[in-house]
Amino acid sequence: MEKKLVIGIDVGGTNTEIGVVNKAGQILCQKNISTNISQNFDEYIALLASEINNCIEKIGTKKDFIGIGIGTPNGNYYKGTIDNAPNLPWKGILPFSEKLSQATGLKAVLTNDANAAAIGEGVYGGAKFMQHYAVITLGTGLGSGIVCDGKVLYGHDGFAGEFGHIVINSKSRRLCGCGRHGCLETYASATGIAATLKSLLEKSNHKSSLRELEFHKITSLDVYKAAEKGDELALKAFDITADVLAISLANLTAVLSPEAIFLSGGLAKAGNILFDPLLKYYNQYVLRLFKEKTQILPSKLLNENTGLIGAAALALNEIKEGILI
Amino acid sequence: MEKKLVIGIDVGGTNTEIGVVNKAGQILCQKNISTNISQNFDEYIALLASEINNCIEKIGTKKDFIGIGIGTPNGNYYKGTIDNAPNLPWKGILPFSEKLSQATGLKAVLTNDANAAAIGEGVYGGAKFMQHYAVITLGTGLGSGIVCDGKVLYGHDGFAGEFGHIVINSKSRRLCGCGRHGCLETYASATGIAATLKSLLEKSNHKSSLRELEFHKITSLDVYKAAEKGDELALKAFDITADVLAISLANLTAVLSPEAIFLSGGLAKAGNILFDPLLKYYNQYVLRLFKEKTQILPSKLLNENTGLIGAAALALNEIKEGILI
Repeated sequence: MEKKLVIGIDVGGTNTEIGVVNKAGQILCQKNISTNISQNFDEYIALLASEINNCIEKIGTKKDFIGIGIGTPNGNYYKGTIDNAPNLPWKGILPFSEKLSQATGLKAVLTNDANAAAIGEGVYGGAKFMQHYAVITLGTGLGSGIVCDGKVLYGHDGFAGEFGHIVINSKSRRLCGCGRHGCLETYASATGIAATLKSLLEKSNHKSSLRELEFHKITSLDVYKAAEKGDELALKAFDITADVLAISLANLTAVLSPEAIFLSGGLAKAGNILFDPLLKYYNQYVLRLFKEKTQILPSKLLNENTGLIGAAALALNEIKEGILI
Repeated sequence: MEKKLVIGIDVGGTNTEIGVVNKAGQILCQKNISTNISQNFDEYIALLASEINNCIEKIGTKKDFIGIGIGTPNGNYYKGTIDNAPNLPWKGILPFSEKLSQATGLKAVLTNDANAAAIGEGVYGGAKFMQHYAVITLGTGLGSGIVCDGKVLYGHDGFAGEFGHIVINSKSRRLCGCGRHGCLETYASATGIAATLKSLLEKSNHKSSLRELEFHKITSLDVYKAAEKGDELALKAFDITADVLAISLANLTAVLSPEAIFLSGGLAKAGNILFDPLLKYYNQYVLRLFKEKTQILPSKLLNENTGLIGAAALALNEIKEGILI
């Protein structure tokens, strides 16, 4: 009997999502546990395995399952480990896929969350027939998963695709989480656009509905809502963000020549408010050789549970033989 | 009997080099014709084929040859064509490998010159055991060949690896050959460093031996010679060039996570005068995750005929069956 189901695990800073996903990308059963449920990694794995087993029992038996795919911050694909993740409760290098495999009796594969999003786009989303593409996730930071010749680009150590950390302006005042200044993600992310808006509020006296909000609490969602109503400073913040992102995407195109670059994450949900200026600038910046070749598109999974779906797609792509034990 | 020889063809703006190369990377016979020998492409191919046949006859017979590798500006690997090369005498899209194959009776493969350099580094140079690396050629412009998972990165249309055309500063006054401003190659190339030096001469009154030369004729070689003698403005020009290149290489590392980046071309021959400031800045700029992982090295083929060797390596890598006809 052909195995038809996979388990997707999306490890986030707050929650760990668990889902049973079929080959059509439908989530048949979904649960979650708090990622912070235990500072003891083995205890966390035991609880996670127990929820996975609950999911499996609800849907069928272990024999129906191909395996488990895991998407996580700082995921090391080559080793199946989480390496020194600053925003997760366990320190050091954690053999996540090995331990979860032992605890569940299912094969497990792991990659970082941005690569999982790229694999999900390829298996279930807009990149189904593409061999060369990238998925850029504009969330709190900027994550990127790059696919070349149909394979995720991992580089020699498994950590390629840190597009959020290309330095746009080393003399920028914007301090990045990585300790350097002026990384792309300090501009082109939810955090980045909020910072841009705040800087505009400080620099000008232009009226804006955003002045009514508590300055330090302004979020990218506030900027989006104001832009939707035509607030000029909010629109200006989108314009600046689009400009910085456009030149970076034009540079990425020059290096990779992908068929498409997909934008995912909260900020990509701004739709035309982001995409109109982004495409205008991108077409200005891109090398003539690549004009009208590489498409800049919203992810087709923008309104889905991208993390889960991506992790499930990883398992579907990479696990062939199924049950280990 | 095992075939042991390949023909390498290096098409340049001035000369087309032809070489018989063995598996150890030795050039056993070398000839050249003027690339401008005929505005008629078919005539050029006939003359090139005739020189190839002369080479073959000198060394052995056609049966000893695996095939022909071609490195050329604007080479399209997927199609075996030269596409709209601005600095070659024939316009439009030229079926180079097909015509040369017909004219010689040998299989022929073609790629652009920067990719040929990368393949040469992998087959004969410093990247012999590497699966992930890049070769950056600092010549008149800046060419790049990128290897991921042991394969040249071509992108969806065959034109990936235009690292010379990542825009460093879109507001720069430096006009690039591509029609845009502030591309990396307007700074980090032989032409770029000469322009930087001229700009320093104009902006300061600092004494420099280069003031004795005719301003418009100053070349990168002049800058190198002056820097070697301690000329402060010349050293400053190397420092600026190294700084711009370093941040771009740090960004390339973040995207690709290569094992090494090799520098080739005339400017890379400047040795420590370039590499000392380059490594200093690169180590400052590179993301912590990649520190002390990616090596920045001079090409091991720096003093060889890189173009020919690279073209020969292409044939060695990609042609399996040998004689077509």
